Amino acid sequence: MTVDLTCNAIDDGHSGLLRAAVDAVDGAHVLAMSDRTFLLHLGGMISVESKVSLKTRDDLSMAYTPGVARISMAIAEDPAVARNLTIKRNTVAVVTDGSAVLGLGNIGPAAALPVMEGKALLFKRFGGIDAWPVCLATQDVDEIVRIVECIAPVYGGINLEDISAPRCFEIESRLRETLDIPVFHDDQHGTAIVVFAALLNALRVVGKEMKDIRVVVLGVGAAGAAISKLLLAEGVGDIIGINRNGILSEDDPRLDDARRWLAAHTNVEKRTGSLADAIAGADVLIGVSGPNLVTEEHLKALAPDSIVFALANPDPEVDPVLARRYAAIVATGRSDEPNQINNVLVFPGIFRGLLDVGARQITEEIEIAAGRAIADVVTATELSPVYIVPTVFNPSVVTAVSAAVERVVRSSPRR
Amino acid sequence: MTVDLTCNAIDDGHSGLLRAAVDAVDGAHVLAMSDRTFLLHLGGMISVESKVSLKTRDDLSMAYTPGVARISMAIAEDPAVARNLTIKRNTVAVVTDGSAVLGLGNIGPAAALPVMEGKALLFKRFGGIDAWPVCLATQDVDEIVRIVECIAPVYGGINLEDISAPRCFEIESRLRETLDIPVFHDDQHGTAIVVFAALLNALRVVGKEMKDIRVVVLGVGAAGAAISKLLLAEGVGDIIGINRNGILSEDDPRLDDARRWLAAHTNVEKRTGSLADAIAGADVLIGVSGPNLVTEEHLKALAPDSIVFALANPDPEVDPVLARRYAAIVATGRSDEPNQINNVLVFPGIFRGLLDVGARQITEEIEIAAGRAIADVVTATELSPVYIVPTVFNPSVVTAVSAAVERVVRSSPRR
Repeated sequence: MTVDLTCNAIDDGHSGLLRAAVDAVDGAHVLAMSDRTFLLHLGGMISVESKVSLKTRDDLSMAYTPGVARISMAIAEDPAVARNLTIKRNTVAVVTDGSAVLGLGNIGPAAALPVMEGKALLFKRFGGIDAWPVCLATQDVDEIVRIVECIAPVYGGINLEDISAPRCFEIESRLRETLDIPVFHDDQHGTAIVVFAALLNALRVVGKEMKDIRVVVLGVGAAGAAISKLLLAEGVGDIIGINRNGILSEDDPRLDDARRWLAAHTNVEKRTGSLADAIAGADVLIGVSGPNLVTEEHLKALAPDSIVFALANPDPEVDPVLARRYAAIVATGRSDEPNQINNVLVFPGIFRGLLDVGARQITEEIEIAAGRAIADVVTATELSPVYIVPTVFNPSVVTAVSAAVERVVRSSPRR
Repeated sequence: MTVDLTCNAIDDGHSGLLRAAVDAVDGAHVLAMSDRTFLLHLGGMISVESKVSLKTRDDLSMAYTPGVARISMAIAEDPAVARNLTIKRNTVAVVTDGSAVLGLGNIGPAAALPVMEGKALLFKRFGGIDAWPVCLATQDVDEIVRIVECIAPVYGGINLEDISAPRCFEIESRLRETLDIPVFHDDQHGTAIVVFAALLNALRVVGKEMKDIRVVVLGVGAAGAAISKLLLAEGVGDIIGINRNGILSEDDPRLDDARRWLAAHTNVEKRTGSLADAIAGADVLIGVSGPNLVTEEHLKALAPDSIVFALANPDPEVDPVLARRYAAIVATGRSDEPNQINNVLVFPGIFRGLLDVGARQITEEIEIAAGRAIADVVTATELSPVYIVPTVFNPSVVTAVSAAVERVVRSSPRR
C-alpha cells in the first residue's frame, strides 16, 4: 500500500510527524507531501522584473546598446547621476554570512537565503524598496568587509543581517568608515529602535520617566548591546546587562571591546551575580536571549508597574500569560500576542527615508527620531497596556518613520 | 530670456548639441532637458518584486519568521533542496568590474550599471531569468575571483560581462575550477556561439565547408580569441588572427598565454604582416575590433563568395554597403542592417537550459549545440544572403537553444 499524503493546511512542522506516522504503518509509504509554508517558498519568493517594455528594436536600442552608452558616459562624467539613472537610488543589499540566522545559529549562506528573501519581501511590501539577498560563503571579517565595499556601487544602502556578535560590530563599524552609503545592522539597530519606541509608550502608560527607571537587559548579543547603548543615550537611569556568565562586569576578561564598554557605562550600583540579583526592584526587563530563562520568582522581584519585553523568538524568555500576572505591560515578538515588537516597524521606513534623501550615513540621532516616530503613530486614545506599538500593517508607520529620518538628515550639517 | 527645452523624441545624443546651440544664443539658457533614452533609464530599469502576497499575519509567519525557519533547516540538512526552495534555481549574477564596458573602455562599476541592468532586462525578456547586476569596485583578479566565489550561494549561474582581456580569461577559468554552477563570459562565448551559428548558415548559402575555408579574425580580444577557439574545434581549415601589431605570431613576446596558444594553433601558412597580407584569398573576415579598419582594397582581396562579419559596435569595421559590393554575405551587430549578429540570441537560451537542468558547468559541447540550434531556427526557405540568423524577437530561439543545452547536459556522464 502506498499513501499519497498531501497536507496543504499544515505549516508548523507537523508534516514530519505525519510522514513518520504513515511510514510506521506496515507497508504504507508517503509518496508526496506538501505543506503551505514549503509551497509558498517553492522557487523562491522574489523575482527581478523589468520596469520597461522591450517590444521593438527601438526599445532595445534605448534600453541596451547603443543608447545605454550615453547613460554610462553620463555617469562616468558625473558619478552622482547614478542615483537618478540607475537602480541605485531604491536598492538595498541584505547582506549575511549565515552565522547567526534567526535562532538557528550558524547554518551558512545557502540556508540563510530563504530568510533574506523574506527580508527582501518585507522591504518591498512595507517600504517599496528593491532589496537583494547577498549571502556570503565566507565568515572572515576582512573578506566580508572587502566584499561589501566592492559590491556597493549598485546599492543605496547596506542592511547587515544575521551576522554573529562580536563580528557584526567590527564589520558594521569598518563599513560605516569606508562607504558613502548608510550601513545598518538590523539585528542591532532595528531591534534597538523598536524596543526604544515600545518603551517610550510603555512608560507613558505606567507614568514613569526614562531617567528614573532601572532596566535589566537579559542577553547582550548584537540586539542587547545596541538596545543598551540607545537607552543610555536617551538617559535611562540605570541598565544592568546580563550574559550567560551573569551580570556584566568590567573585570571579566572574556568580554570583547563592545561589551566591556557597556559594562563600564552601566550598572551604577555595581551589582554582581545572576538575573535574580539584577532584577530585584527593576522597572523594566528586556529579554533578547532565549526561551524560558525567566521564572515566576524573577517576576515577583520586579518593581511595581513593571514592564516586561520578552523578545526571544519563537519562544519568549517567559510565558506572557504568566508575566502579565506580575507586570503592568508585557510585550513579545510573537504575532499571536498583543504588543508585537517587530523590526519590520523600523527598517522599511528608515531605509525609505535614507534613500529618498540620499543619505550617506545613519546616525544615532536618526535612530532616535525613528523610534519616536514609531511611538507617536499610536494615538493617546489608542495607547493602552495592550497597545504600545502600532501593528506592522499600519501604513502610517513607514510614512512617519521615513519623514522623521528625512527631517534629521536634511537638518544635519553633513549628510 | 530662459528657454525650457524638452526634446522627448531625441535619443541619439543630439540633446547635447541642442543645449549648446541654445546656450549660445545671447541671454538664452536651457532650464530643463529630457530625451527618450534618459527618461527610460530614470530610476533604473529593473525592480525586485514579491512573488507572494503579504496581507495577513499568517502570510508573514509563513514567508518570514517563524515559518521560514523550517525552510532554512531543510536546506541546512540537504543543501541540494536550495534549488527548489529559494530563488537560486532561476537566478544569474551579471558580474562586471567595469573595465571594458561596450566600446567605452574602462569606465568603472558605477557607469557599467546601466549596461548590466539592460542585460538583466534581456535575461528576463528573452529567457524568463532573474538576473542581478553585480558591479564590482575592484579590478584585481584575485579579489574578483574570491568575491564571485563568496556571492555564489544565491545564484544558479554566473554571467561575466565587460571584463577586459586578458584578465577575463583567468577570472573565468579560475571560477570554472572552483564553482559548482556554470560560469559564462558572454563577451567571449556568447559572441563565439552566435558567430558560429551565423557562419554555419552563411556557409550553407555560399556552399562552402568549414574544413575548406580560411578565416581572418580581426581583433583577438575576448571575443576574437573565443571565436577562433570555437571555429578551430569545429574544424575550420585555417584561421589567421590579427591584433594591433599585425598577424599573431608565436614569437611575439607581448602575447599572453591565451593568445600565444592561438598563434600556435592557427595560421597554417605562417603568414606575417598586416591585414592586407592575411586577407588575400580569405573566405571569411570576422571583425571584432573597431570602426573603419577594413578598406575597399582589403575587400577586393577576398576569395569569391566571401563572407564578411563586421561586428564592431556601433560602428562596424567597414561600411556594410561597401562590403556588400565585394562579399556574398555581410553581417553586422547593428539592428538597422540585415543579419544582426547579437549575443541576445545566445545567453537567454543557454542559461535557460543550464538552469532548468541544474547544470554544474558549461562545456564546449554545449556551446556548439547552442550554435547549431540557433542556425537551425532559420528554415531552408527563409535562409538567404540577408537572412542567416533569426531575429532576436523570434521566440523559437530560446526554446531551441535551451532544449539543445538540456539534451547535451542530460547525456553527459557528469553534469
